[in-house]
Amino acid sequence: MTADTKTLDRQAATRIAPRSGVAFELAEGQRLTVIDPEGQQVSDLLAFVRGDVGEVISNGRTFDYEETIALTTGNRLWSNRSNVLLSIEEDTVGRHDFLLTPCSEATFRHFYPGKPVHRGCFGNLAEALAPYGIGEDQIPVAFNCFMNVPIAADGGVSVVPPSSRAGDRITLLAHRDLVIGLTACSAYDSNGGSFKPIDYRID
Amino acid sequence: MTADTKTLDRQAATRIAPRSGVAFELAEGQRLTVIDPEGQQVSDLLAFVRGDVGEVISNGRTFDYEETIALTTGNRLWSNRSNVLLSIEEDTVGRHDFLLTPCSEATFRHFYPGKPVHRGCFGNLAEALAPYGIGEDQIPVAFNCFMNVPIAADGGVSVVPPSSRAGDRITLLAHRDLVIGLTACSAYDSNGGSFKPIDYRID
Repeated sequence: MTADTKTLDRQAATRIAPRSGVAFELAEGQRLTVIDPEGQQVSDLLAFVRGDVGEVISNGRTFDYEETIALTTGNRLWSNRSNVLLSIEEDTVGRHDFLLTPCSEATFRHFYPGKPVHRGCFGNLAEALAPYGIGEDQIPVAFNCFMNVPIAADGGVSVVPPSSRAGDRITLLAHRDLVIGLTACSAYDSNGGSFKPIDYRID
Repeated sequence: MTADTKTLDRQAATRIAPRSGVAFELAEGQRLTVIDPEGQQVSDLLAFVRGDVGEVISNGRTFDYEETIALTTGNRLWSNRSNVLLSIEEDTVGRHDFLLTPCSEATFRHFYPGKPVHRGCFGNLAEALAPYGIGEDQIPVAFNCFMNVPIAADGGVSVVPPSSRAGDRITLLAHRDLVIGLTACSAYDSNGGSFKPIDYRID
């Protein structure tokens, strides 16, 4: 690691408790760093344009313009209106997901019928984003930091533990004034079976 | 082909002119058959719940529940609220796309800078769906019938000509009362460089 990286690591971060979520504003030109403090923990990230929340990140527009589903340093996250909302400036993992939706009560019932139902990232995001005038139906596929979703040759999708280790992070630059939704993911498979916190920092 | 298939082919279908789109209602229990009459032509399909258009097909929820991005006979198309809206009953092609967004003025400017700008499937869908109270920001990733989008081992996405031949089709059963948006796609790469009609039939 470089000296600069060490400095970065010592700066204060805000913690998101396991299985919870937050929303906050990120101004154009600011950087959001999402950190996996213990390793193998997913964080669902949403970005809406502040003051015009009908504009939101879109997995389809991003796959179109970036011409890849494997998004890492240098790639941009595009909106449903074909504008760049965020660009990835640094990424110590290189493995994220933009295919699958936030876990929810319905996904818990479907995938974990024997386990207690949890409102999941979807419920956490909905509650956190409601004060910004964002309703449940406006929540799209999130950019799932650290989520590890291999695609088989036949198109089959699986969810395996993240490859992130303690301290790994991804830094995104805001290209617009944004409202960010961010979680510490609540689903068993996504996080290797245990639920850990997520840290984030705004610079 | 079976005798049944031949009969099906002789029934009347409605034609969507090249580079245009339509919207119509499809009742629960009805079947929509999308036909590629000349071959190598994509048709973008959207489905909203009639009377409650905040509920719409979701690529992410579909990938989640179907556990594949390669959707064909037997697969279901799920909504953002985790309900099945359509299921695929027959599919003579087996190659469709649910990753990429409808082509639009912005995608024409981006991918075809030397060619005339067209409003694309996005503009065609927006106009056709407006009478149902569906705004542009409510248009998600469409289920792109016959669209051929290989994913490379490194995650790279490309758009190649459809593998559909003249008369190929896909039949979907409605699980709810729906509003359907359907196009004959307007983008060069998606359709092998030429623009052909799409036929559809409701049974």
